[in-house]
Amino acid sequence: MNIGFIGLGHMGSRMAANLLKAGHSITAYNRNQDKARALGQHGARLARTVAEACQGETVITMLADDAAVESVVFGNDGVIANLRPNATHLSMSTVSIALAERLAAAHSNARQRFVAAPVFGRPEAAADAKLFIVAGGEEEAIEHIDPLLSVMGQRTFRIGDRAAAANLVKLSGNFLIAAVIESLGEAMALVAKAGIDRNAYLEILTSTLFTAPVYKTYGKLIAEEKFEPAGFAAPLGLKDIRLALAAGDDLRVPLPLASLLRDRFLTLLAQRGERLDWSAIAALSLKDAAA
Amino acid sequence: MNIGFIGLGHMGSRMAANLLKAGHSITAYNRNQDKARALGQHGARLARTVAEACQGETVITMLADDAAVESVVFGNDGVIANLRPNATHLSMSTVSIALAERLAAAHSNARQRFVAAPVFGRPEAAADAKLFIVAGGEEEAIEHIDPLLSVMGQRTFRIGDRAAAANLVKLSGNFLIAAVIESLGEAMALVAKAGIDRNAYLEILTSTLFTAPVYKTYGKLIAEEKFEPAGFAAPLGLKDIRLALAAGDDLRVPLPLASLLRDRFLTLLAQRGERLDWSAIAALSLKDAAA
Amino acid sequence: MNIGFIGLGHMGSRMAANLLKAGHSITAYNRNQDKARALGQHGARLARTVAEACQGETVITMLADDAAVESVVFGNDGVIANLRPNATHLSMSTVSIALAERLAAAHSNARQRFVAAPVFGRPEAAADAKLFIVAGGEEEAIEHIDPLLSVMGQRTFRIGDRAAAANLVKLSGNFLIAAVIESLGEAMALVAKAGIDRNAYLEILTSTLFTAPVYKTYGKLIAEEKFEPAGFAAPLGLKDIRLALAAGDDLRVPLPLASLLRDRFLTLLAQRGERLDWSAIAALSLKDAAA
Amino acid sequence: MNIGFIGLGHMGSRMAANLLKAGHSITAYNRNQDKARALGQHGARLARTVAEACQGETVITMLADDAAVESVVFGNDGVIANLRPNATHLSMSTVSIALAERLAAAHSNARQRFVAAPVFGRPEAAADAKLFIVAGGEEEAIEHIDPLLSVMGQRTFRIGDRAAAANLVKLSGNFLIAAVIESLGEAMALVAKAGIDRNAYLEILTSTLFTAPVYKTYGKLIAEEKFEPAGFAAPLGLKDIRLALAAGDDLRVPLPLASLLRDRFLTLLAQRGERLDWSAIAALSLKDAAA
Repeated sequence: MNIGFIGLGHMGSRMAANLLKAGHSITAYNRNQDKARALGQHGARLARTVAEACQGETVITMLADDAAVESVVFGNDGVIANLRPNATHLSMSTVSIALAERLAAAHSNARQRFVAAPVFGRPEAAADAKLFIVAGGEEEAIEHIDPLLSVMGQRTFRIGDRAAAANLVKLSGNFLIAAVIESLGEAMALVAKAGIDRNAYLEILTSTLFTAPVYKTYGKLIAEEKFEPAGFAAPLGLKDIRLALAAGDDLRVPLPLASLLRDRFLTLLAQRGERLDWSAIAALSLKDAAA
Repeated sequence: MNIGFIGLGHMGSRMAANLLKAGHSITAYNRNQDKARALGQHGARLARTVAEACQGETVITMLADDAAVESVVFGNDGVIANLRPNATHLSMSTVSIALAERLAAAHSNARQRFVAAPVFGRPEAAADAKLFIVAGGEEEAIEHIDPLLSVMGQRTFRIGDRAAAANLVKLSGNFLIAAVIESLGEAMALVAKAGIDRNAYLEILTSTLFTAPVYKTYGKLIAEEKFEPAGFAAPLGLKDIRLALAAGDDLRVPLPLASLLRDRFLTLLAQRGERLDWSAIAALSLKDAAA
Repeated sequence: MNIGFIGLGHMGSRMAANLLKAGHSITAYNRNQDKARALGQHGARLARTVAEACQGETVITMLADDAAVESVVFGNDGVIANLRPNATHLSMSTVSIALAERLAAAHSNARQRFVAAPVFGRPEAAADAKLFIVAGGEEEAIEHIDPLLSVMGQRTFRIGDRAAAANLVKLSGNFLIAAVIESLGEAMALVAKAGIDRNAYLEILTSTLFTAPVYKTYGKLIAEEKFEPAGFAAPLGLKDIRLALAAGDDLRVPLPLASLLRDRFLTLLAQRGERLDWSAIAALSLKDAAA
Repeated sequence: MNIGFIGLGHMGSRMAANLLKAGHSITAYNRNQDKARALGQHGARLARTVAEACQGETVITMLADDAAVESVVFGNDGVIANLRPNATHLSMSTVSIALAERLAAAHSNARQRFVAAPVFGRPEAAADAKLFIVAGGEEEAIEHIDPLLSVMGQRTFRIGDRAAAANLVKLSGNFLIAAVIESLGEAMALVAKAGIDRNAYLEILTSTLFTAPVYKTYGKLIAEEKFEPAGFAAPLGLKDIRLALAAGDDLRVPLPLASLLRDRFLTLLAQRGERLDWSAIAALSLKDAAA
């Protein structure tokens, strides 16, 4: 398939590489062209403009946030203005529900297809094509790009016609991970201040009830207070919690635990935590307790 | 081994049955004698008083809360007054740190041994000898009763000399489970109000990042709002969160997520939720959101 | 002075009436022209467009929220496009910090003056010219419109050059009032469930430490659960807490009490509380406690 | 009247002095006898034991916490064992609801009268007989000691037959004050980080909506971060919030704002804040925000 790929960061570059490997033809665009060039060495064509990346039957966007997506999608030089009718915009970024709904409406107006398909997984999972993907949009549109999803992830979950629903699932998933981080932070502060060894404690947890990888991965980071380099940086964590809260605000769903997380992230960022992994909010529990 | 067993509720009766099966000799005491009689049919001797259950080299207590343990341990008719020197009190109840420390001191004064060994697992796990056990106390004392633990559980974690540390791990574990319940309740309220099917959502979660049994078990109860019969009743959930907070208070460890859980349990109980499973606090998120 | 006045709701109509009474000449605009007509009977000229209201040396806006202000300020027919150089836009609405800053920048670009001067007080205070006003903007600009402020309020506080600072003070003030409401709701739930008479309790509070009018006004509404008609409706309360949180988010200031308030408002609105006074969030404490 | 007075700290010594001045005869007991001696110079008789202070028709206790009250009330040497029938125990300490109820029952068993009459006010108010007093107990019993209350305070509020209700009002009052402190801390962090002068801000608040002394007193301490010497020390603040939460727990009343306050106090005390005024919890907002 002829695919445009916009956004070649830690995630996007690995996802695009897997598409290339599977034999797809990629026209890649990145604001910072150096990153696009790296992919060029693997066989991608380089686009100088967003419009150039929109000439095929599908364009994939994998960008950091709403603002980045808006900047490539709207306007005369953007995806909507340049994608041909019936072509598909496959939006894999973690964005707000509000933006997902604007995109769905705008593409529908332009007689283009729109699929929201955010992913769960870190850069290593992207490299190994082990991402989990949640796809929302019209059945037929998803069917059409499904072969691409299969190349990038280990499993796709279809969540129905409403594209934004996929984004909501993604945001709620990140909320659940952050909740695990917060709970581990508090538990660790409690037992550590009582003199219990953090690693021995973590071993008990992850051998018994909390066997999910998320407890192992983050438990280790927290027990050792090793928050650099960031796998997923704190400002991105704040962004996602903020988007979950915004969705709750629109839907009138109070989310007290998400509110607590928001305040944790703000505290972390106020204390110069911008470059730390988002699991560093757990260290605030240790610090508050002087544990 | 000649073992006294005090407390034959949903958990204790199954644990004692496994000890009998393994060939140990049990003298069983329960305030309500009907329950003791049931165990009698499996070969246990029935004790009419706590004192009678304290004649062997080990006495196990498995009771509902601090008050129940205090009522059988202290006083002239209690465990401490009747256990012989060097015999062991193996306390498997989920009790407060404060009580665990009082017990450790009192037994030490009476030249008796004390091991705190609370368990993770529901009644079915107790029946199948699949409990996880966290044991705290002097090395030698634990060594001595270790064969009993092996008969009742699938794995024992030793947490060091301080018996109360085992209770703290147990309380912190229940806090972590309750945190999972709360986070699932909020996430479910959010996606459900957006029109996403709860079971489809849960399937995504538990197939990807949240594979631990705790997400599956409680996720299902919450998705279906099936909170009766209670596997672990709400008042017991409140009790454990209250004990975790009390431990935090003594140690000066703020626990904002535990505070949120406490308020959830109080709301649930104020709304006639006494007989519901503790996971029913998740339904409060759905109710608040009118989801 | 020749003044344009845009926004003739409960507050604006009374404020404009006071300006007329003081001898100022008013050209009034309201989207719903009926409201403008009522003021016409008191001597105001009616404007058919925003532009017509921008012909004098000052235009005052007093509107419900950011969207309403944006709709009259930006665009070819808006305030900025139609106000003459050196004329002043006096923005008295409660709006976001972000919008206040955009307005300040846009007016500066257009060589117009901008003063943010949000008010504290309910419609009766507006009618009696008893408002408290917080004014932010350049000294000279404030000096110029100060006679207008004196006619509308009982006292003006100048907060410095940065216009948005006035809006932040206003938002923080509403946060403080909402905090009083929440605290009274919790306290009232506690004592009421213990069988203490709510009014007797309130009498004690307001005769001793809590003599400020805010405790008396809201305490009475809460004790009697009388939330209709709304003096200040719940959706406006949510809006202001949301704006305070947004300011905190931009500045990286965690606000846990504001987060709690946000969740209270969302719960209230999810339970069909749109038409209730914002103090109805206190009834949620009574309801949660079944008090 | 012949009065025993037990507890001569910052508050008790001043209250006893006012009783002496009004012509009452005082037999004073304090664990640390130096403090009793100081009162002796004003005409009080010194008691060497609690029992000696219980020979008159009324004994007043004014102590720091539950433990202090329990230590003088129960046991063979305590108030209950030594007070004669029909004599009155006037308990003015801030204690738990549970203790107040135990005291009421114990005195009733001993055919003694019991009045709970906790006070609002700092030591200066005690010295000036400006305390506010909330009295609970049987009408006749309160009537009897009312002349004493009049000498110590500026106004007494009767809250009905149930003595413990007076303690609940007192605890809820301290909760309300702490809520003011927290809200001021958050508001101050928000405006301060935006560059607004704290004192100018406080001036606006206390000149407009928040005229109650509690805003002025604590607002000033917070604006200037002047938390030493403590007027009311942080551990006492924690104690009272803990007691309010315990009352809520017994009555099944969730108190999320009180939970937030509890965590603030624990954080403060974990950070070596034992000697600071309880209003120092506000500084945690400033610190979290790096304001």
